[in-house]
Amino acid sequence: MSWSQKTFSLSPRTRGSYLITDEVVQAVPEIANYKVGLLNLFIQHTSAALTLNENWDPDVRDDMTDALDRVAPESAPYRHDDEGPDDMPAHVKSSLIGASLTIPIKDGRLATGTWQGIWLCEFRRYRHQRKIVATIQGERK
Amino acid sequence: MSWSQKTFSLSPRTRGSYLITDEVVQAVPEIANYKVGLLNLFIQHTSAALTLNENWDPDVRDDMTDALDRVAPESAPYRHDDEGPDDMPAHVKSSLIGASLTIPIKDGRLATGTWQGIWLCEFRRYRHQRKIVATIQGERK
Amino acid sequence: MSWSQKTFSLSPRTRGSYLITDEVVQAVPEIANYKVGLLNLFIQHTSAALTLNENWDPDVRDDMTDALDRVAPESAPYRHDDEGPDDMPAHVKSSLIGASLTIPIKDGRLATGTWQGIWLCEFRRYRHQRKIVATIQGERK
Repeated sequence: MSWSQKTFSLSPRTRGSYLITDEVVQAVPEIANYKVGLLNLFIQHTSAALTLNENWDPDVRDDMTDALDRVAPESAPYRHDDEGPDDMPAHVKSSLIGASLTIPIKDGRLATGTWQGIWLCEFRRYRHQRKIVATIQGERK
Repeated sequence: MSWSQKTFSLSPRTRGSYLITDEVVQAVPEIANYKVGLLNLFIQHTSAALTLNENWDPDVRDDMTDALDRVAPESAPYRHDDEGPDDMPAHVKSSLIGASLTIPIKDGRLATGTWQGIWLCEFRRYRHQRKIVATIQGERK
Repeated sequence: MSWSQKTFSLSPRTRGSYLITDEVVQAVPEIANYKVGLLNLFIQHTSAALTLNENWDPDVRDDMTDALDRVAPESAPYRHDDEGPDDMPAHVKSSLIGASLTIPIKDGRLATGTWQGIWLCEFRRYRHQRKIVATIQGERK
């Protein structure tokens, strides 16, 4: 049984949905050392989120961004709007999508499906740099 | 400390919400060997999801299916529609509900509440067979 | 490698969103014993949920409650309404937000971001007391 834990920053991005599988795997090469285990990714922010979704067609990412805007529209009435109209909708979306992912590791690789990729959902209009805590536990090779 | 990991397939199902607690427990009888631990269930697909919800009244499952259709309707405008009108709404719902569950194990059983069951949410109209990676870690009895 | 697991009850609350970070940390002081690890919080109910979100402005909690009411409104048609109009919307919200959280532990503390707190989302109008299973695994100091 072995643990690895590190914090890393994603490239800063403006509002949208982004495929970050390669960025994550490069930041956490320790995945390759584990025969069996789990990777927990935890984003330390409340106006962005992590999810798994389609890894091929960029249209899916744009459609997701739009669909979440319909679920939590800027036009709804909010008490909390100190940082602008995208502030509170960002908090709603972050709880709907979630701040963390737990992904199985098998034979040194993430055991994701063929079409699954790791996404960052950035909900704020202005460019933000987001920090992720990656925790791996498992049996080493 | 001990790990078990396996991949299994659920029975193929058409669009809807399904109680799969028994199917999961039968596929992962190793749960019974653990005094304390965690079961991670990870669905390797992006147009279906896993969740926990009410385990008694089938109406709850049908109402959930309908409620998610209202949250991500087929009638909304989508760029990505190669596989039909249920394609992109399925991706949206999968990120809203989530691809994985982590459930505590206590004394050889899942420590779910009295009314909690494991659900498969299948978002595609046509019958699909879904694969789940089950990872258990814990202390054996 | 070490495991701790316990079940505790939250203070009973009526419908709303509540910051419960202090209540959780007091219920699980074992967090302080771990150099590196993960805390899993699992709510044993299907009409409440756990999430991470903003820990400062109470308006964010009230806005969240309202926003989720718009996503799963009581006015929609539901088959399942045995326990009143807030019954089925509560089940929908619980699957959208989720029943569990996995939070990294670093040097005896939760590795949450500066503005992140643990929230209970209570979706039933009448006061309910909710039970949480807390499971910690990690390397002790």
